[in-house]
Amino acid sequence: MTSQLHKKGEAWSARFSEPVSDLVKRYTASVFFDKRLALFDIEGSLAHADMLAAQGIISAQDLADIQRGMTQIRGEIEGGQFEWQLDLEDVHLNIEARLTALIGDAGKRLHTGRSRNDQVATDIRLWLRSEIDNIGTHLGDLRRALLDLAEQHSATILPGFTHLQVAQPVTFGHHLMAYFEMFSRDAERMLDVRRRVNRLPLGAAALAGTSYPIDRERVAATLGFEEVCTNSLDAVSDRDFAIEFTAAAALVMTHVSRFSEELVLWMSPRVGFIDLADRFCTGSSIMPQKKNPDVPELARGKTGRVNGHLIALLTLMKGQPLAYNKDNQEDKEPLFDTVDTVIDTLRIFADMVPGIKVREANMRNAALQGFSTATDLADYLVKKGLPFRDAHEIVAHAVKICSDRDIDLADLSLAELQKFSPLVGEDVFEYLTLEGSVASRNHIGGTAPAQVRRAIAAARAKLAK
Amino acid sequence: MTSQLHKKGEAWSARFSEPVSDLVKRYTASVFFDKRLALFDIEGSLAHADMLAAQGIISAQDLADIQRGMTQIRGEIEGGQFEWQLDLEDVHLNIEARLTALIGDAGKRLHTGRSRNDQVATDIRLWLRSEIDNIGTHLGDLRRALLDLAEQHSATILPGFTHLQVAQPVTFGHHLMAYFEMFSRDAERMLDVRRRVNRLPLGAAALAGTSYPIDRERVAATLGFEEVCTNSLDAVSDRDFAIEFTAAAALVMTHVSRFSEELVLWMSPRVGFIDLADRFCTGSSIMPQKKNPDVPELARGKTGRVNGHLIALLTLMKGQPLAYNKDNQEDKEPLFDTVDTVIDTLRIFADMVPGIKVREANMRNAALQGFSTATDLADYLVKKGLPFRDAHEIVAHAVKICSDRDIDLADLSLAELQKFSPLVGEDVFEYLTLEGSVASRNHIGGTAPAQVRRAIAAARAKLAK
Amino acid sequence: MTSQLHKKGEAWSARFSEPVSDLVKRYTASVFFDKRLALFDIEGSLAHADMLAAQGIISAQDLADIQRGMTQIRGEIEGGQFEWQLDLEDVHLNIEARLTALIGDAGKRLHTGRSRNDQVATDIRLWLRSEIDNIGTHLGDLRRALLDLAEQHSATILPGFTHLQVAQPVTFGHHLMAYFEMFSRDAERMLDVRRRVNRLPLGAAALAGTSYPIDRERVAATLGFEEVCTNSLDAVSDRDFAIEFTAAAALVMTHVSRFSEELVLWMSPRVGFIDLADRFCTGSSIMPQKKNPDVPELARGKTGRVNGHLIALLTLMKGQPLAYNKDNQEDKEPLFDTVDTVIDTLRIFADMVPGIKVREANMRNAALQGFSTATDLADYLVKKGLPFRDAHEIVAHAVKICSDRDIDLADLSLAELQKFSPLVGEDVFEYLTLEGSVASRNHIGGTAPAQVRRAIAAARAKLAK
Amino acid sequence: MTSQLHKKGEAWSARFSEPVSDLVKRYTASVFFDKRLALFDIEGSLAHADMLAAQGIISAQDLADIQRGMTQIRGEIEGGQFEWQLDLEDVHLNIEARLTALIGDAGKRLHTGRSRNDQVATDIRLWLRSEIDNIGTHLGDLRRALLDLAEQHSATILPGFTHLQVAQPVTFGHHLMAYFEMFSRDAERMLDVRRRVNRLPLGAAALAGTSYPIDRERVAATLGFEEVCTNSLDAVSDRDFAIEFTAAAALVMTHVSRFSEELVLWMSPRVGFIDLADRFCTGSSIMPQKKNPDVPELARGKTGRVNGHLIALLTLMKGQPLAYNKDNQEDKEPLFDTVDTVIDTLRIFADMVPGIKVREANMRNAALQGFSTATDLADYLVKKGLPFRDAHEIVAHAVKICSDRDIDLADLSLAELQKFSPLVGEDVFEYLTLEGSVASRNHIGGTAPAQVRRAIAAARAKLAK
Repeated sequence: MTSQLHKKGEAWSARFSEPVSDLVKRYTASVFFDKRLALFDIEGSLAHADMLAAQGIISAQDLADIQRGMTQIRGEIEGGQFEWQLDLEDVHLNIEARLTALIGDAGKRLHTGRSRNDQVATDIRLWLRSEIDNIGTHLGDLRRALLDLAEQHSATILPGFTHLQVAQPVTFGHHLMAYFEMFSRDAERMLDVRRRVNRLPLGAAALAGTSYPIDRERVAATLGFEEVCTNSLDAVSDRDFAIEFTAAAALVMTHVSRFSEELVLWMSPRVGFIDLADRFCTGSSIMPQKKNPDVPELARGKTGRVNGHLIALLTLMKGQPLAYNKDNQEDKEPLFDTVDTVIDTLRIFADMVPGIKVREANMRNAALQGFSTATDLADYLVKKGLPFRDAHEIVAHAVKICSDRDIDLADLSLAELQKFSPLVGEDVFEYLTLEGSVASRNHIGGTAPAQVRRAIAAARAKLAK
Repeated sequence: MTSQLHKKGEAWSARFSEPVSDLVKRYTASVFFDKRLALFDIEGSLAHADMLAAQGIISAQDLADIQRGMTQIRGEIEGGQFEWQLDLEDVHLNIEARLTALIGDAGKRLHTGRSRNDQVATDIRLWLRSEIDNIGTHLGDLRRALLDLAEQHSATILPGFTHLQVAQPVTFGHHLMAYFEMFSRDAERMLDVRRRVNRLPLGAAALAGTSYPIDRERVAATLGFEEVCTNSLDAVSDRDFAIEFTAAAALVMTHVSRFSEELVLWMSPRVGFIDLADRFCTGSSIMPQKKNPDVPELARGKTGRVNGHLIALLTLMKGQPLAYNKDNQEDKEPLFDTVDTVIDTLRIFADMVPGIKVREANMRNAALQGFSTATDLADYLVKKGLPFRDAHEIVAHAVKICSDRDIDLADLSLAELQKFSPLVGEDVFEYLTLEGSVASRNHIGGTAPAQVRRAIAAARAKLAK
Repeated sequence: MTSQLHKKGEAWSARFSEPVSDLVKRYTASVFFDKRLALFDIEGSLAHADMLAAQGIISAQDLADIQRGMTQIRGEIEGGQFEWQLDLEDVHLNIEARLTALIGDAGKRLHTGRSRNDQVATDIRLWLRSEIDNIGTHLGDLRRALLDLAEQHSATILPGFTHLQVAQPVTFGHHLMAYFEMFSRDAERMLDVRRRVNRLPLGAAALAGTSYPIDRERVAATLGFEEVCTNSLDAVSDRDFAIEFTAAAALVMTHVSRFSEELVLWMSPRVGFIDLADRFCTGSSIMPQKKNPDVPELARGKTGRVNGHLIALLTLMKGQPLAYNKDNQEDKEPLFDTVDTVIDTLRIFADMVPGIKVREANMRNAALQGFSTATDLADYLVKKGLPFRDAHEIVAHAVKICSDRDIDLADLSLAELQKFSPLVGEDVFEYLTLEGSVASRNHIGGTAPAQVRRAIAAARAKLAK
Repeated sequence: MTSQLHKKGEAWSARFSEPVSDLVKRYTASVFFDKRLALFDIEGSLAHADMLAAQGIISAQDLADIQRGMTQIRGEIEGGQFEWQLDLEDVHLNIEARLTALIGDAGKRLHTGRSRNDQVATDIRLWLRSEIDNIGTHLGDLRRALLDLAEQHSATILPGFTHLQVAQPVTFGHHLMAYFEMFSRDAERMLDVRRRVNRLPLGAAALAGTSYPIDRERVAATLGFEEVCTNSLDAVSDRDFAIEFTAAAALVMTHVSRFSEELVLWMSPRVGFIDLADRFCTGSSIMPQKKNPDVPELARGKTGRVNGHLIALLTLMKGQPLAYNKDNQEDKEPLFDTVDTVIDTLRIFADMVPGIKVREANMRNAALQGFSTATDLADYLVKKGLPFRDAHEIVAHAVKICSDRDIDLADLSLAELQKFSPLVGEDVFEYLTLEGSVASRNHIGGTAPAQVRRAIAAARAKLAK
């Protein structure tokens, strides 16, 4: 072989007078992580070759050779026989060199009218588009799992907390639906990111476009891109899509971290609201009684990882002059790890949610503590004619006295309640029950079981689309 | 006055047995920054009161009193006479206390069926929606300024760089259009964020909804919200929109940082591509000759500030259990500063771009250095029948020899060129000119002047919509 | 007045042909935040003038005039009469201009042999050194408060958690001492940072040093700096000390966030381990019964703010070429806010800790749940001759059976226990008590009351140094 | 085999009723990255076993068996024959299970009086201590390389820049010594971190210490730890050292990014100050003339990676309650990658610096542009009696006129100079030369060749210690 690619051991090209040092090769090579893009690289190359042939830039025979060679290479990669070489730096040169070894001159013609700069940008967009679709699927699975559990518990009552203090009774179905909403926004955001990912950089060549009569719209159509990137300098150096995706992923993980925090808390014996299935927990090497909620804890920890990748990418692009700089090679590992983290986490949560065992009695007992219906008493007084601010003050006073006596509002007799306000009547006690409280919050977004069921039905309809 | 709000100096409410310590008041108060939301707080309160009256929860007279009181308060705030009190913690209680002082019991009824939790979430969304619209305007101004400058320089040639090494000649108009593209994506993203900001949390009350027969859709319509937040627990604790906005803002600043890096570099005397107008520069306290590009440098530095705010918000939400926690109060300052930073920066850049003085001769001279048309020579050989990889190797060899002799490719004679490849003919020299090189990249996204003008025309049409 | 500083409204200096635009003035000015450095700026200027006079660069009369002028200016600043002017950009030029107005030519001679670049670097180091000392004081106060509370509760038992599951009984004093350790490391780190802050940049002038025969060691001695920065280019552009300080501050806040998480959790009614004094809590605008732990929640949220500032500073310095660039002006606000956040937070925590009311019965009851002495049973079996791994498995089996029967290990009869292992004897029950368990962990770092008291005594001795 | 560790396929321990799901096993296992700690795990185990035997907790025979088994295991790991099993979760259980397989009951006794919580904390500290020492070595190598190059160029003049505008002439040796200073501070910081890393957590057991009569000081002495962690709860959950190390590493990379920015800029053809050896550069797949400074660009990009890891770790610890939580498992990968990034980068830079080819003529020519000696002219006038502020204004005026005429200050005749100030004499021209300018900055930290040589000598002495 006399091709340039096969002499890299001697010098990078004829322009260089010494070979790249081994330390530098290892430091700058990307093949050991970017080979993950291999099948997308082949897909992009085939679309490029198809266009070159259609435009008469290469011959039909060249195209046929390239297609044949790529079919073989794809097989070698999928079968694990492909031999990745550090000397060939990256996925692109590895595949191109193998292609040339297989089919000769046609292989050397494939790189006509393109550069690795637009090639890698195309590969990574193809790959990310596909992973965004995977994430969409897993977000759907998790949301369905949440809906199922919420439906079972549309009338199960637990205390709603603010500041981890008992606030008002809510239904557990309603609580779960809050997470449904969060993951739904995540799915929305992923679709918005997808639109900006789904644009074709190929044709930008190194930075300025190419002097060959290329047809970028044909390539875009072949690869399913919705638009063509309309400035070549921008096309090769834009990594907005990676940053925007990672920011959306950081929000997914932020939501996971919030849900995890609650799962861990709910499973703590003092709270005891739920139990996770044994298969999602592990024990301790020293304490024989332990059953630990490892999955939500680890997921909570992994939030940091994705926040970190977001910062890595933003730092990478800060102050980068046009057009492509080697710094950009650092875009891949954070992106790969972000995708893996989000997908693994969503899968395991979709699997874990149906195994949540709800301890309804503990939830109910907790809701009976902490004056959770104090707001209902204030609202009762307002309905009897008191301005809200005055009602609030009266009930605060009653709570203070109950708290000092270590009893609940509902433990007070009618006579005692009437000392706080003569407006109190016998009907007051029905307002102080948990069921009465939750049922009364019966409007869009409210916690009443009827509203929760309505929200679940609407969500199912939306997901089914 | 006997209202609860006016006795905070004694105790927070009747439930408390001692007043909040002064240190705590200062630590937890938000009024000194959240008063920025005052007019949006009033707007939200008026929409809420209108709905309460329409639903018969308060009387028509109460509504009229509230409207009258709020008109006066708005005047006091706009006129700078409103007296903000630390004891009243935040913008909400300050306005409510003043309202009650002005109109009595109707003021105490305003807070019926809502909580500060949904109130502040509403205020901040109203405010952010308005600022996103401002940012859209400034992004438009900056893009128009870039278009004008690009149009003047659609045929001005400078070296395109990759790795800060001369790559290929490009037109300066094309280079500027790369930034146009970036800021256009930013504008797109802001519109996507706006959709998610533009949803109504009011009606979620503290966390669970309210027992009053409220009409959330009426409030949404009054305030111009596109949707109602459909889960009360989520509505009061969701800060996704703030994080998503800040991530979009970080990308705006990242683009500004890249443009700034180039402006600073271009103005450095060794490069000398541009000069910034004196009014955008300052001097040195010690070196009398200095004229420093302060604005782009400072803007580049401010990228860090917005990246930092993004991390602040992500850290804030990590692991937060439902529903509202005091941590969330920390959402405002990063958001306010992000908006101010982005708007100030965009305004000043829109102002600065038209004052850029282009040094065309320096640009041209730079493009003549560094073998910028080497790719054109390789492409020339391909068109004569050589596979691209072989052509690349031949030209690399020629460059090595020129580099050692310290001359350019165009300085070689035809005979010398033919020694590298017999395919070289007399027509080769036209391919080696800067004008020939840029003109040949004549496809969508290419650097040819014709393409740049086409891209500018398309951009103007898009902006005019 | 004809001085350059008083004509800035016309042009920055004679080198400029138009004045700085108003927008730019506001964008680039720092006076509204860097005036905070004013007294340190004066201190630095006086040390510089003293050296200039000692070296014969200015006259004794000039020095006397400068000292007199600065005394008056300090008075004006402290008295609030000093008129800060935007046109004069920053604290340095504001003070210098006022000095010249007061004392004439001697004022114009003050800036001999220095630049604002080394001047601001000196100011900020003087200021930060002083704030580090303040932080040290507040860390000391908080640690003393922790020691006092730990001492009261050296034998109070609560469950130690891992994964929020009951692990083993620990003493509350021991638990508090973990935070003592964290804040002690923070204090150590602050001292390490202080050494690197406490170096003199003055004399680096703009970037290269100065042609005057200055005596930097004299200035260092006057200002109490331990070393002189030994490279002028580095001296004006080094912001390591700011980043290192902010990283140390982020750890302080991380520790505060962990303690806060526990305080919030412990005060939640389901846990009920502590109560915070009313003066550290506030209520709800809607729910009359609420008493919320605002201070720890807000402090936990503020962790994000400091992490954000750290990223702001790191982003700022990334890729900055030598020497001073305007980007560096962005170092101040994050640093100021970091100092304020840390100091306010430490002060309020030092104040809050003594007001923590411990609910010992709740702690004890919680420790009796969850098989907290299972490890003790395993250790008991090991002492009877079983390998640890086998003992662990036997106890895990016993726990499973108790868990299914909803009883504790200590509820099993001797006969039942002996079914799990014949090694169990009558002495087993003393190993299963909470007191027996904690007392047995009696080595350096263990939770036994004796060890806790020992650790407290050692800590007091260390703090007293 | 009947040991608990060998039945994990059935259930985690006898306390669990179903096996851990495969998805969970993969999600929560750490063995595929923490096996990197294997040799340190063995070292820690041997020190623990030695202490157990010395204290009579295990027999001398047990110790001998453990030592024999561990010797074999170490050989298997080093030889690549050790079979790592996912079912055994992590490095600790893998080694322990193998040990028990090899030596029987003595293997089951090794875990007496410790937990994986204190074991992993010990392993990671042993590993990090060793890597900090490696980083110290590489920082030393890089600093020596900088010293050598600085010495060669102690009198080579280039323009010193502020704001990338020509400021004053400096010597290249002086410029390089600025980086020497930065990397010296990094080395200092690493030593400070090392002190806090070098403390023994072992003995903390799961969280509370152990009931066995352990001797922690003996273990500390065996392992070379300077101190014993004095609170068990803190010992198992403290990750300060990891955060502090990563912050110090982020500063190393920040310095590398600044140096890289300059190398890239200096090698850009318009600047042309240096050339990097071919073996540190690569070419372009499309542009045959390209020689790109990949190494500094990639290193600059890697700054983001380490900043990201710092955020990952800070986010991880934010709000974590005591004691150990599974989140902490996420500490390892960021730490491992930070160490690898820093070490690889420092090694390659130490290798690259000696190959920097300095283009002295280009440097000198650049210093002659941009009025680099304007400050010297102002200082000259001050020495003739003018106040500095007036001298500054006069020179600014002269520069404006030269700039408009496109000439330098030294191109003005004596008569012309005297028009600006009658104080100018014939001796003025020697102050306007580059050599005169740099030589005059002859004080500690100044750029004069004599000072640079002095600084180099001092640095060599310091490094030799």
